[in-house]
Amino acid sequence: MTVDIFDSISPLDYRYSRTEIVRKLSKYLSENAKVKYQAMVECAAAKVLEKESLCPKAAAEEICAACQKISASEVYEEEEKTKHDIRALANCIRNRVSEAAKPFVHFGLTSYDVVNTADALRYKECAEAVIIPALLELEKTLISIARNEKNTLQIGRTHGQHAEPITFGFALAEYVDRIGNRIIELKKSADGLRGKISGAVGAYNSLSLFFGDPEEFEKEVLNELGLKPALHSKQIVEPEFVLDFLHHIVSCFGILANLSDDMRHLQRSEIAEVSEAFGEAQVGSSTMPHKRNPVSFENVKSLWKSTMPRLMTVYMDQISEHQRDLTNSASSRFIPEILAAFAITIERMNKTMAKLAVDKAGMARNFDKSKDAIIAEPLYLLLAFYSHPDAHEAVRKLSSESNLLELAEKNFPAYFKKFTPKQVDILKNPQKYTGLSEKKTEDVCSSWEKKLGIK
Amino acid sequence: MTVDIFDSISPLDYRYSRTEIVRKLSKYLSENAKVKYQAMVECAAAKVLEKESLCPKAAAEEICAACQKISASEVYEEEEKTKHDIRALANCIRNRVSEAAKPFVHFGLTSYDVVNTADALRYKECAEAVIIPALLELEKTLISIARNEKNTLQIGRTHGQHAEPITFGFALAEYVDRIGNRIIELKKSADGLRGKISGAVGAYNSLSLFFGDPEEFEKEVLNELGLKPALHSKQIVEPEFVLDFLHHIVSCFGILANLSDDMRHLQRSEIAEVSEAFGEAQVGSSTMPHKRNPVSFENVKSLWKSTMPRLMTVYMDQISEHQRDLTNSASSRFIPEILAAFAITIERMNKTMAKLAVDKAGMARNFDKSKDAIIAEPLYLLLAFYSHPDAHEAVRKLSSESNLLELAEKNFPAYFKKFTPKQVDILKNPQKYTGLSEKKTEDVCSSWEKKLGIK
Amino acid sequence: MTVDIFDSISPLDYRYSRTEIVRKLSKYLSENAKVKYQAMVECAAAKVLEKESLCPKAAAEEICAACQKISASEVYEEEEKTKHDIRALANCIRNRVSEAAKPFVHFGLTSYDVVNTADALRYKECAEAVIIPALLELEKTLISIARNEKNTLQIGRTHGQHAEPITFGFALAEYVDRIGNRIIELKKSADGLRGKISGAVGAYNSLSLFFGDPEEFEKEVLNELGLKPALHSKQIVEPEFVLDFLHHIVSCFGILANLSDDMRHLQRSEIAEVSEAFGEAQVGSSTMPHKRNPVSFENVKSLWKSTMPRLMTVYMDQISEHQRDLTNSASSRFIPEILAAFAITIERMNKTMAKLAVDKAGMARNFDKSKDAIIAEPLYLLLAFYSHPDAHEAVRKLSSESNLLELAEKNFPAYFKKFTPKQVDILKNPQKYTGLSEKKTEDVCSSWEKKLGIK
Amino acid sequence: MTVDIFDSISPLDYRYSRTEIVRKLSKYLSENAKVKYQAMVECAAAKVLEKESLCPKAAAEEICAACQKISASEVYEEEEKTKHDIRALANCIRNRVSEAAKPFVHFGLTSYDVVNTADALRYKECAEAVIIPALLELEKTLISIARNEKNTLQIGRTHGQHAEPITFGFALAEYVDRIGNRIIELKKSADGLRGKISGAVGAYNSLSLFFGDPEEFEKEVLNELGLKPALHSKQIVEPEFVLDFLHHIVSCFGILANLSDDMRHLQRSEIAEVSEAFGEAQVGSSTMPHKRNPVSFENVKSLWKSTMPRLMTVYMDQISEHQRDLTNSASSRFIPEILAAFAITIERMNKTMAKLAVDKAGMARNFDKSKDAIIAEPLYLLLAFYSHPDAHEAVRKLSSESNLLELAEKNFPAYFKKFTPKQVDILKNPQKYTGLSEKKTEDVCSSWEKKLGIK
Repeated sequence: MTVDIFDSISPLDYRYSRTEIVRKLSKYLSENAKVKYQAMVECAAAKVLEKESLCPKAAAEEICAACQKISASEVYEEEEKTKHDIRALANCIRNRVSEAAKPFVHFGLTSYDVVNTADALRYKECAEAVIIPALLELEKTLISIARNEKNTLQIGRTHGQHAEPITFGFALAEYVDRIGNRIIELKKSADGLRGKISGAVGAYNSLSLFFGDPEEFEKEVLNELGLKPALHSKQIVEPEFVLDFLHHIVSCFGILANLSDDMRHLQRSEIAEVSEAFGEAQVGSSTMPHKRNPVSFENVKSLWKSTMPRLMTVYMDQISEHQRDLTNSASSRFIPEILAAFAITIERMNKTMAKLAVDKAGMARNFDKSKDAIIAEPLYLLLAFYSHPDAHEAVRKLSSESNLLELAEKNFPAYFKKFTPKQVDILKNPQKYTGLSEKKTEDVCSSWEKKLGIK
Repeated sequence: MTVDIFDSISPLDYRYSRTEIVRKLSKYLSENAKVKYQAMVECAAAKVLEKESLCPKAAAEEICAACQKISASEVYEEEEKTKHDIRALANCIRNRVSEAAKPFVHFGLTSYDVVNTADALRYKECAEAVIIPALLELEKTLISIARNEKNTLQIGRTHGQHAEPITFGFALAEYVDRIGNRIIELKKSADGLRGKISGAVGAYNSLSLFFGDPEEFEKEVLNELGLKPALHSKQIVEPEFVLDFLHHIVSCFGILANLSDDMRHLQRSEIAEVSEAFGEAQVGSSTMPHKRNPVSFENVKSLWKSTMPRLMTVYMDQISEHQRDLTNSASSRFIPEILAAFAITIERMNKTMAKLAVDKAGMARNFDKSKDAIIAEPLYLLLAFYSHPDAHEAVRKLSSESNLLELAEKNFPAYFKKFTPKQVDILKNPQKYTGLSEKKTEDVCSSWEKKLGIK
Repeated sequence: MTVDIFDSISPLDYRYSRTEIVRKLSKYLSENAKVKYQAMVECAAAKVLEKESLCPKAAAEEICAACQKISASEVYEEEEKTKHDIRALANCIRNRVSEAAKPFVHFGLTSYDVVNTADALRYKECAEAVIIPALLELEKTLISIARNEKNTLQIGRTHGQHAEPITFGFALAEYVDRIGNRIIELKKSADGLRGKISGAVGAYNSLSLFFGDPEEFEKEVLNELGLKPALHSKQIVEPEFVLDFLHHIVSCFGILANLSDDMRHLQRSEIAEVSEAFGEAQVGSSTMPHKRNPVSFENVKSLWKSTMPRLMTVYMDQISEHQRDLTNSASSRFIPEILAAFAITIERMNKTMAKLAVDKAGMARNFDKSKDAIIAEPLYLLLAFYSHPDAHEAVRKLSSESNLLELAEKNFPAYFKKFTPKQVDILKNPQKYTGLSEKKTEDVCSSWEKKLGIK
Repeated sequence: MTVDIFDSISPLDYRYSRTEIVRKLSKYLSENAKVKYQAMVECAAAKVLEKESLCPKAAAEEICAACQKISASEVYEEEEKTKHDIRALANCIRNRVSEAAKPFVHFGLTSYDVVNTADALRYKECAEAVIIPALLELEKTLISIARNEKNTLQIGRTHGQHAEPITFGFALAEYVDRIGNRIIELKKSADGLRGKISGAVGAYNSLSLFFGDPEEFEKEVLNELGLKPALHSKQIVEPEFVLDFLHHIVSCFGILANLSDDMRHLQRSEIAEVSEAFGEAQVGSSTMPHKRNPVSFENVKSLWKSTMPRLMTVYMDQISEHQRDLTNSASSRFIPEILAAFAITIERMNKTMAKLAVDKAGMARNFDKSKDAIIAEPLYLLLAFYSHPDAHEAVRKLSSESNLLELAEKNFPAYFKKFTPKQVDILKNPQKYTGLSEKKTEDVCSSWEKKLGIK
């Protein structure tokens, strides 16, 4: 059934769907994809029935062949009649096989054996094939910039105020580390997604009619698909597997939002340390022709705001009464939107960072404004270390004046004599007061290249 | 640009889009609709330019004619080049008019003059043309059932426990009142939506170059569209107007979720006081052929869980730095999803309630189980009123036994003599202990019919 | 029962409780306050019983006298036994009155008649006595600064980028308008809070045993307290009254968060247009003696982040099964925290804004950086108005160069001849390109002074 | 500073603080506890300074002795002057030591080295000493009931409708498994909490003045406390460590909410399969003396609703601009409330479940109502297996009649002949149709006893 894409209501469908990454995602997250995965579960069950000699080989083959041909369109048409999506799917498969094969279609399965297993599989494969690779690309981009800029002096900022100097590479190493950490956790929780073939209330009631060991049947069907069962399920798989997975996605999204805020602010007119690349013909404002706006970074933040609260739905959906109520059914249909919004954002962030213009001169200019003031910290610490009884207060009082170093030398000559040459050097050259910025940048980058195997 | 609907990612597009109400909503909420409304703003501006003699009549007419032909498809193609949606729209209009008219296209407007005004208008019209009428239909349905059942005895439940008797009509009158109240508030806040024609930072900078009274220009353009300006705007309209509107929508959605929970539980196998109508060919379960499930009520609850947390995005979007940052841009594109999910839910709720099977015998059966116990309350109150010093405790002790009334008559003969005949009648016929259930039901229904003009 | 305040777990109790405004709030929001208000409801009911000749005058007087003496401490002790808070309250009152008065204590009331009514009353009075006056103070402070700075040139910022000029007063007028609007709405919804005296399931079951017109009894009791009944209630008052009230509080909180973000960023080292006043002995950093941090603005934003999501609890609490389940009981106990956090924030914002240091020279310095570029907009518009066929594009191309005006005069001499003197004046003096900034500031301030009666 | 506990605003302080578990939590979560932990960090730093020969042994001893005496009360008094909490703490320590030791107090540390490290430590210890043990107790209770009831027939429910039979033990095994899983994850993330001693911007700027290897210094200080550093930190530790920890807490809370909903509904008057134990003198309702309400289960659900949305604050606090803004400072102070609410809930849930009255007769009674209907599933499957071409539809049509089995035998005699004796046995004795309920219950219980070492 074809429609005008602009008759869609969701921006994921009418607007973001034409990005390259969404085309990749479609194989896992569209409704067509869902039906395809559900049919894969039906086929896997038929195969194992055959392996267990419960169904003739020809029947299993027929069923699997039929499963490959099923389209969402056909299932939806059938659902008009049955008012039940999985019964519609089963009917569609049955309609495509011989009378002999019909009884083995959906045999022993309950709807959510199919729905939950298919969802676990497509989310897992989507993470492994699209999301994690995209994150690894972003990680590589960030590592590359961090390394290039590991010596690029930048004033560190706390409270939006100039604090102590770092390097721009060190600032980015924060994100290399945080995102690296999320990739590891996301891999784990994608791999931790679980399927089920345990029947309508999870107790293998019907399967027990036919199988000596229905748990073995479950294991084999899931194994066909590359999944494992949970230790316990009811009509549905325990919700925490998907919740953990989405928590890692949304918490990684938050890191991108943080990076995007940092970049937005570094791009402020007065700060101007970085900027998004800007197309030759791109328009900044419909009315202010001179504008160069951080639109990609704003987009990242905005999609985060749009997506993050949806996790609350998943926390609410942890509650399903008794062996299951169905109040998580419609809401679960929206989970692919979270994955899609996240993947779109990773891709956009990666493209934007890859072309980020870093203005070293701008960073130097901003640093220079504070180079006098920032020696307040090393000065107070050196005074304290060499036994000034109230160094913090003494320096705080001087620090409202300019010429802090000069004043300090005049006020505390005895202390200055005790300072080592390296210490004096830092007081005179505050640009050297970057601590371990360079080393740490390199350590973080190398460590993650190794852990993630992306060198 | 046509696509397979099942390649969509949002259930609003692939699944719920084929309901009747979504077809109505599409005129306001789809991307095509958005572009259409934005073009309406451009046309309105041209008309007022002409009225103010700043633009030739022919030019304004050309522009408005062009505006009517603009499609989202065309604008998106142009946006590929400009990377700016409203500049793309303006270019598309310009491409359709003569050289003489070109300068007056988008004249004096900034992007968000168009975006915010168009959104205010389409949300307002969507509420007035679709959402509020649908709520009024639901209200009528509920009033009709409430009236029919105003004498239908039902045991009232608190904590899921039998409490005091009411009537089923009285229980529904709660929803008549709550939804009625929301309709009034929603009307107000839809009417309260505001547009703006105040330029890039809200100070009418550019308009002041050409207009003696740019506020008058703003008023006239908005008036063309049936809108009013806010007292102050910056690049964007103050976000509280849309937030209030969505608060009323989401808080009304919560009421539907509550009603749906009530109905779900009344449909429990053990309670069985109501049931959703069930199609002849409808399948309850893919594996349990005997099931009759409250799927519509579950769907309502589920869509509420999916929608409600999205309001948090709107609360976050109240924050826009200085004269505006753009981190609310992508997120605002998702607002139509909230309206669509709500409208779909109203329609489904209305259809489901309209066919609700009310099992009076089931209600009577459940009442009967507790008819002895429920006289505990009137008994304790009557004892207390006629001066028993510790009536609550005295009755609490007796109430673990059956035959409460008999025991009480034996224990407190002196008190029973003081009771009025009406009081004794209620103790002996607890089904009469429904207080004002009937009167209140009628009062609530009549009151809302009058206030909403739906009789 | 006294405790060490620092054994508390909530920062509202151990940290923010010592601000002046929390001491005022305590009368409405502490547990002592809650019990006091609940006792007020019990007293009001006794008074009306007497008025209706159902209870002797002496008894009503005894009860009201007892109500005034009840402390939370006493009620909690009794609750240890009864495991029921309102029964405990009733017992405490009973213990303080004669045998003759005992039967009329809590007569005809159900727990939530007392709880909901007391909460409605204390929230309403808290809003009227503390929160709204505090907001009015803040509004006055903002009006005063806005007026003082209505001519103070500032560069307007969109996307964090310099856009068109405004005045600082105009920027603040945004907040005057938004907060003014919230004050009006908050007043309405505080006044809209409703009580109930309608019994255990809302049908006046028990009251009907004794009163010819139990709705009249409800009205009179509530009237004693300055409240009105809802048209319908069940065991509890419809939740939307409190939800609307809290929505207005939280949406006003969001405005304070926005203002605080604006001020934080204007205080950035590179921007430096405003700063929080800083105490002589105040320490900016435990280790960097030179820091001047926007700690109050950060605190406002942080308390908003902490408070806003709690509104989701209230949206969830709209759902209460049948005539009521009790899953909103514990959660409702946390509502006063929302009010307290908001009130604390208003007070802190007001104090901070009242002492805000506005650096006009800093604003001028930042404006100067962009004064050339910002004429791009008026230039493009004037060219367009005087019939340049593609003015936006033409100016966009020039705008990457400096000397935009000079270049433009050279490139478009024919157009410049058509410009009016006022138009040329603005192109040459971009500081005059502030549109209606001054007028709008004054209009907004005057309008709200009048509407709020705060002149 | 002592206060009346009922002047508190937070229910955590005035109401829940008197539970046994909160008294335990107080050692970790109160403001006194926080200051104590912060002083522990200061002491650990002094010890390592001494170990590194940067500070005399006597000085380190003096500092640690002083640290043990510091109270929150004293620090708050000092903060009145400094307006900075950690500087106040340092001053308080300094005031208690000799001039010689003063310089080594807080030497080389920045505030958040202390704050973040102290918080990581107290949250970790709170989890290990209180929360996880409480969860293990609950797990043991649930295992014990599940085992006892592993053969207790119960009708499984989906959509609130009778589905297929299970055992009550099997239903509880779901929670054993889900909670067991959370305990494992919570242990990991508690152990994963990280500290930092890396200075004001995370680059060890000041420490580099004095230490050859400042990362070694960091490691040693944290090692003194039983913590590890993150690979990278800025002014603050990366927020994902605490976020993961709280995610596991909140997601475990959701499981308790689900269990509580199940129990609430099983306690409904019409279902009556379980009930909360009820104290002899306990009052169910202030006005309905006969009520027995599931108040503990309602309380659990309510505290979950109150707590869960607060996680959104933590997701928002992932964003901290540049090397840190302070907008997560006040909000972080509320994190202990999440831990406290959760711990209170575990304890209450455990006590309630431990005394749960399980009504086997009630379960049998409910099962009996559906015993005819539930054979629809096995019947349809057996027909299908033995080659009925449209078994689901055939049975669906019969299932609206009573006497399903009889009808089926009459309609499908040929099929019945093919059924095995075990299959016929189940059709005639649907109470045997519980599948693997018993085995699975035992497997889940044994598996978790082993994994958690709680046998």
